[in-house]
Amino acid sequence: MTKWVYTFGDGAAEGNADMRNLLGGKGANLAEMSRVGVPVPPGFTITTEVCTYYYENNHTYPADLKDQVLTALAGIEAKMGKKFGDPKNPLLFSVRSGARVSMPGMMDTVLNLGLNDETVVGLAEKSGNEKFAYDSYRRFIQMYGDVVMGVHSSKFEAVLDRVREENGYKFDNQMTVEQLKAVIKEYKEICEKDGHPLPQDPKEQLWGGIGAVFGSWMVDRAIYYRKLNNIPGDWGTAVNVQTMVFGNYGDTSATGVCFSRDPATGENYFYGEYLKNAQGEDVVAGIRTPQPMTKLVKERRHIDLPCMEEEFPAVYNELNAIREKLEAHYKDMQDMEFTIQDGKLWMLQTRNGKRTGTAALRIAVEMVKEGLIDKKTAIMRVEAPQLDQLLHPMFDKSEKRVVLTTGLPASPGAAVGQVVFSAEDAEKQAGEGKKVVLVRIETSPEDIAGMHVSQGILTARGGMTSHAAVVARGMGKPCVSGVSDLRIDYEGKFLKVGETIIKEGDMISIDGTTGQVMSGALKLVLPEMTGNFGEFMSWVDEIRTLGVRTNAETPLDAKTARQFGAEGIGLCRTEHMFFDPARINHMREMILSHTVEDRRKALAKLLPYQRQDFVDLFTIMEGLPVTIRFLDPPLHEFLPNKREEQAEIARELGVSVEEIAARTAKLHEANPMLGHRGCRLGITYPEINEMQARAVFEAAVEVMSKTGKTIVPEIMIPLVGTKKELDLAKAVVVKVADEVMTESGKKFEYHVGTMIELPRAAITADKIAETAEFFSFGTNDLTQTTLGMSRDDAGSFLPEYVQKGIYEQDPFASLDQEGVGALVEIAVQKGKSVRPNIKLGICGEHGGDPKTIDFCHRVGLTYVSCSPYRVPIARLAAAQAAVRNEKK
Amino acid sequence: MTKWVYTFGDGAAEGNADMRNLLGGKGANLAEMSRVGVPVPPGFTITTEVCTYYYENNHTYPADLKDQVLTALAGIEAKMGKKFGDPKNPLLFSVRSGARVSMPGMMDTVLNLGLNDETVVGLAEKSGNEKFAYDSYRRFIQMYGDVVMGVHSSKFEAVLDRVREENGYKFDNQMTVEQLKAVIKEYKEICEKDGHPLPQDPKEQLWGGIGAVFGSWMVDRAIYYRKLNNIPGDWGTAVNVQTMVFGNYGDTSATGVCFSRDPATGENYFYGEYLKNAQGEDVVAGIRTPQPMTKLVKERRHIDLPCMEEEFPAVYNELNAIREKLEAHYKDMQDMEFTIQDGKLWMLQTRNGKRTGTAALRIAVEMVKEGLIDKKTAIMRVEAPQLDQLLHPMFDKSEKRVVLTTGLPASPGAAVGQVVFSAEDAEKQAGEGKKVVLVRIETSPEDIAGMHVSQGILTARGGMTSHAAVVARGMGKPCVSGVSDLRIDYEGKFLKVGETIIKEGDMISIDGTTGQVMSGALKLVLPEMTGNFGEFMSWVDEIRTLGVRTNAETPLDAKTARQFGAEGIGLCRTEHMFFDPARINHMREMILSHTVEDRRKALAKLLPYQRQDFVDLFTIMEGLPVTIRFLDPPLHEFLPNKREEQAEIARELGVSVEEIAARTAKLHEANPMLGHRGCRLGITYPEINEMQARAVFEAAVEVMSKTGKTIVPEIMIPLVGTKKELDLAKAVVVKVADEVMTESGKKFEYHVGTMIELPRAAITADKIAETAEFFSFGTNDLTQTTLGMSRDDAGSFLPEYVQKGIYEQDPFASLDQEGVGALVEIAVQKGKSVRPNIKLGICGEHGGDPKTIDFCHRVGLTYVSCSPYRVPIARLAAAQAAVRNEKK
Repeated sequence: MTKWVYTFGDGAAEGNADMRNLLGGKGANLAEMSRVGVPVPPGFTITTEVCTYYYENNHTYPADLKDQVLTALAGIEAKMGKKFGDPKNPLLFSVRSGARVSMPGMMDTVLNLGLNDETVVGLAEKSGNEKFAYDSYRRFIQMYGDVVMGVHSSKFEAVLDRVREENGYKFDNQMTVEQLKAVIKEYKEICEKDGHPLPQDPKEQLWGGIGAVFGSWMVDRAIYYRKLNNIPGDWGTAVNVQTMVFGNYGDTSATGVCFSRDPATGENYFYGEYLKNAQGEDVVAGIRTPQPMTKLVKERRHIDLPCMEEEFPAVYNELNAIREKLEAHYKDMQDMEFTIQDGKLWMLQTRNGKRTGTAALRIAVEMVKEGLIDKKTAIMRVEAPQLDQLLHPMFDKSEKRVVLTTGLPASPGAAVGQVVFSAEDAEKQAGEGKKVVLVRIETSPEDIAGMHVSQGILTARGGMTSHAAVVARGMGKPCVSGVSDLRIDYEGKFLKVGETIIKEGDMISIDGTTGQVMSGALKLVLPEMTGNFGEFMSWVDEIRTLGVRTNAETPLDAKTARQFGAEGIGLCRTEHMFFDPARINHMREMILSHTVEDRRKALAKLLPYQRQDFVDLFTIMEGLPVTIRFLDPPLHEFLPNKREEQAEIARELGVSVEEIAARTAKLHEANPMLGHRGCRLGITYPEINEMQARAVFEAAVEVMSKTGKTIVPEIMIPLVGTKKELDLAKAVVVKVADEVMTESGKKFEYHVGTMIELPRAAITADKIAETAEFFSFGTNDLTQTTLGMSRDDAGSFLPEYVQKGIYEQDPFASLDQEGVGALVEIAVQKGKSVRPNIKLGICGEHGGDPKTIDFCHRVGLTYVSCSPYRVPIARLAAAQAAVRNEKK
Repeated sequence: MTKWVYTFGDGAAEGNADMRNLLGGKGANLAEMSRVGVPVPPGFTITTEVCTYYYENNHTYPADLKDQVLTALAGIEAKMGKKFGDPKNPLLFSVRSGARVSMPGMMDTVLNLGLNDETVVGLAEKSGNEKFAYDSYRRFIQMYGDVVMGVHSSKFEAVLDRVREENGYKFDNQMTVEQLKAVIKEYKEICEKDGHPLPQDPKEQLWGGIGAVFGSWMVDRAIYYRKLNNIPGDWGTAVNVQTMVFGNYGDTSATGVCFSRDPATGENYFYGEYLKNAQGEDVVAGIRTPQPMTKLVKERRHIDLPCMEEEFPAVYNELNAIREKLEAHYKDMQDMEFTIQDGKLWMLQTRNGKRTGTAALRIAVEMVKEGLIDKKTAIMRVEAPQLDQLLHPMFDKSEKRVVLTTGLPASPGAAVGQVVFSAEDAEKQAGEGKKVVLVRIETSPEDIAGMHVSQGILTARGGMTSHAAVVARGMGKPCVSGVSDLRIDYEGKFLKVGETIIKEGDMISIDGTTGQVMSGALKLVLPEMTGNFGEFMSWVDEIRTLGVRTNAETPLDAKTARQFGAEGIGLCRTEHMFFDPARINHMREMILSHTVEDRRKALAKLLPYQRQDFVDLFTIMEGLPVTIRFLDPPLHEFLPNKREEQAEIARELGVSVEEIAARTAKLHEANPMLGHRGCRLGITYPEINEMQARAVFEAAVEVMSKTGKTIVPEIMIPLVGTKKELDLAKAVVVKVADEVMTESGKKFEYHVGTMIELPRAAITADKIAETAEFFSFGTNDLTQTTLGMSRDDAGSFLPEYVQKGIYEQDPFASLDQEGVGALVEIAVQKGKSVRPNIKLGICGEHGGDPKTIDFCHRVGLTYVSCSPYRVPIARLAAAQAAVRNEKK
């Protein structure tokens, strides 16, 4: 018999923190908290296996689930001394989702389950608080109606709006018992009319709630969230059924969310928010502005509301002790939910808190210093992509800020963009290449896609734990929330702060680290690489074994990459150097030449430019390795297609436009990706390789003379498919090297290697390694050829392919390890079999992807090469790979 | 010390027939003939290793070669009792090339070497035949001048022409001694004037001759011939230096070429030609019309010249005995050269004779019946591509022939085409898609490329062993030679037979089997598959283990293939069925649809057509397997690019031309080969797969009902890269199959498999085989992706790639076994590891290539599939692979 149900509460539990895959994160941690003596309302978890079963069996449950649930339920009734559905002393439940990883706000929850026309009377009597009982019943109907029965929530909201308006109420808790009863009556009529009468049987309510949670696993927004976060759809969610405790029991009650350290900055102080006389959803929903936990925060943020330390000093102390206990127990920053019912503290959840990159780094470094964790654990605590947040520009401090208004610093970082007022507009305009800042009264799960494409998010309502804040921190997007003097007109598409009006399309700057909002576009500058960051990265470099280089052609990129810790250039794409206006016409002259002699003449004009390019790069890299890839793209890329442009070039070059048109037409290819490019150019026009080799070697000689550093150029031949191609190309390079040595009277070292970017090259890598001194995996092209998929054309089907799970991720973003990776492994083995110390790198865009870097570490590459801004991420990912793959 | 020189002659030899790689074919066989007691003029062979050395060492010889040559030379002098360069009794040599395989007419030869102003006098005295001596000297200067010193032969010919004209001579041998002496004087002056005085030192002459032979290995025509025949350039040629014997010694002398059986038809009789008082080159050159060997031939061909059987009865009997001896020794049809000097017979060469496909087949079958060889040897004796000659059309016997003239039946088969009068015109016009017949007075090695592209060859001069005849038979081209009443005007570009004039571009029909020439285009029909052919192919089928299917979509192709012995259809490309005018607009309607419903409507219109296609194929194939590939090409292939055509379709479909233009533009792809095609279409538009599956299954049910045969359709999903793609496509097929079974009330079997045509599919074939019931290797696309080479675009560099040896052959014609083949092997192993009995086929165009078929046999495929006309070739190649790879 499979065990589908695990109980917890009252100092004991059937599960524990290690059972996250089975019980979900919430369920596992509820069990763990019970075990370590933290007060948790008793309940039980229905496993993720039930979810999987549910979707594999046409939305049905295992036959024996019902009995296991009823047994668990009876256990809780015994513990609590109450009965589910008992009209005198009813037990109430919450029903919540809980996947392996948190998906905040993505899935459904039902609270106050077990209330009906009879039990509400019992609850009122037993609690002595009629208003609380009927308020709970009202909330239950509204939530159950919406979540389980699909009655649109606006129908219930309309009733509330009317009652508030008729009575001039600001908050719902101002309603009287009589008003609540009238609302309940109306609510039930709404359900009835909608064809979904409210079930009065608590057990029916319970199964309805469970079904709703399982059902919510497959709604669009949950699927989208999983896709965004690479969470497999077959993990499923658990369902947690837990005794209700009430933060809305009156003014001795409250509910809140807190973190053991600041999730935005990582600072070690008690951080959180609560609401008196409220249920948990009220805090997250962002409707009422929540109160701070501590006097410290009150002072710092100039908040006028009372804090918990003042209002509930005893409970505060108990909670602060639990904070310390749980952090020490989990050895990580905790994100906790609690409820105070009539003065008693209950913990509803703890989990490792989501945090910004800044916070992750600070917490990791400080926890090492506090002796809580070691360095290896620390580097695993910062997700490599999160580093991105620390690398991206901040506002230039020298620039004067004219602050329009200030809100909560909900997610750090600087963002500049044009204002948009809906997620749809954000997606549309970002799709057109605009940088946008999304401005909303508050955000909801439907806005996720729009938030993803925005530079930053600005909201009028919501606290530090509102939807906007949590999601923005997860995405590493700057966010300022709860800007109370911000008025937003969705219809008119403008916002107003005081008398200042900012319309859609106007530029705005927001600082998620300070909460400041400025109109106009502030200047951005690179962040400093020192302090915690510097210390952390020094640990990273200690631990990693994989080298990290950069892909760079320009001096600016080379300099940036060196600042970010690049250990050389892994890919210098020389063709990019020919598009410069001063050079492109020489290039075109070369292409239009009819004879070798004419081609040589044109190439001779390009030589000084190209040589200077390499002089600059060698100088910046100060003797670090520089891998130079010879001309790669098909020649037609250098000729214009439009007749007007052809005419212009014809004038400049003094040839007829017909000739240019004819040459362009002749160079046209059906599949340029598979055409006359790469080393094929140098085979048919060896004089191109001669010029490039000469530029490289003359530059090396020049820089060695000037700087005294030893330069060992690495020349890389692209698109090699056979050993013979490389032999032919290498022969030209060797010949030119000999010439330059003779001419300059200086000996120098150099290496000739190849891209491995065709399946044939991977399969015959042993042959190729006889000639090649190094391999660099060009995984962009290798992916295109191995999968038979053009990156430029895949847009018409690849999104559907990822959605249908044909590829787990976009194979151009993260290496397809099963297919392309298998070829890389074959090439590594074959290459090493012939040349055991062969240098092996990767220079496709995958080189900056942490999953791919883990793969590269495992298969034994020497280095990865990526764009300058990805260098620190690659360093961290390489260190994490080393830890992850340590021999245990 | 390396042995560079091998002697032979006088009943003994240092080499033998097995040393073909070292001694070349001619050298090995001269040695072998010496060993078995056939009279061979003594000589020695310089090995092919010297040729390789020569080209690897900047055209120099091994240091010890000279000594070895001189030692061999001294041995011959001792044997012959003459001395090289002796003014009294000079020894003369021939110097001839001899590669591993015969390259007729491709390389240089020098005869009569050792003659100078002094030795010619000695030769005259010793032979008592002054005219013979001076004629030999004249020939020597002309040949040496042309071949060794590069003096253009036309300069010598002009002198001869003048002398003939002045004296009214028809043949050169009518010249007097005085005239010969005058000619020799003029010849020497010509050489002098050209800057190349004739060397008088015989040793200098000898090294000049040897150098010329080695040098001729790398002339363009030899390189072209090797490329055409896939002979590696590094094999090199040997050089045979052999005592001269003289067929031009007077009327008791002669020289000739003979075959142990008829090389054109294979008939077992003594076949050959000779010329009295002539040297060997005279026979081959086709200047004088040679005489037949036997009375039989004289009678059959109505030849008026005397035959050898009559003119030299004793020598004829000796030669006929040697013919029988050598055929029995070599167990193969022999091609022999002989010379009669003053009544004594000398054999100059024997080798396995080249033969037409018809002859090869007949000889093979008859030799089995004669007990000379076994069936396995027999099937190795017919080159698979030669079968092509037997399969190609013959003239319809029912059509009345009006024979214009008759020549020699030099190479069998029927050809119809437009007349051209030069090899260049043949190449040009064939390049434009015309079918041409090349008409020449005689052909020369320079004409090879033009002969290759012609349907057939017609010459006015030359015998059965003339250049035209030999080369045409090698190529399997019909040829009629020696049409003596044919007058050709190259300038005016017309030919004349009697009063009939045929101009360039006029149609002509030639029958190389009968020698008949007809004006106009005769009707062609398929040959019969019976007799020797039928018997031979039955042996082939006994021996082979690989199945042979065909690629066919049309009933005509399917029928033709069955006649040729196809065992099923390996590839039915369904997209070809949509281009029919009656269907294309429904297809376009489908593509232009905006909704699934509209697409379904359009597809419903295509269904009846497609179903009928399959009904036809299933009916023709009578239960043999039929593999149907679902829609493969990108959809834009079905839409026109030109505005006018778009406008026309817009009218027909009742949509705006803008809409068609927009859809076409949207479907445009940068690399369509790697785009939205293959199974990707069926994943994004499953309704297409639904329609195709329905058409297949409904057709199967219909044909089973009608014919009672069991039809087991094989559905093949193209361009699969991952198991999941195949899962999704298969799910649709299974669903439709279930529907059709329910609707028809009939159960039927079917298989779903996949193309393996992407490297990823090969690499993950174990995963894919979990779903796929069969694999078919689509080696066209697999080559394109593995090599990263678009077949449509490779024209700009692939010829140079083959020329430079980067690929040994065009990888689209013969499988790149090292690269693509390695992936196929991986896929075979992985596929079988999961599904041991998985059916494995190949359906790329490589499926009809004998080398690829050998590979397919070795890696364990189940069958190959090729175009209908390749089916018999594939059957033979499969049988040869079985023999070749037999476990010894």
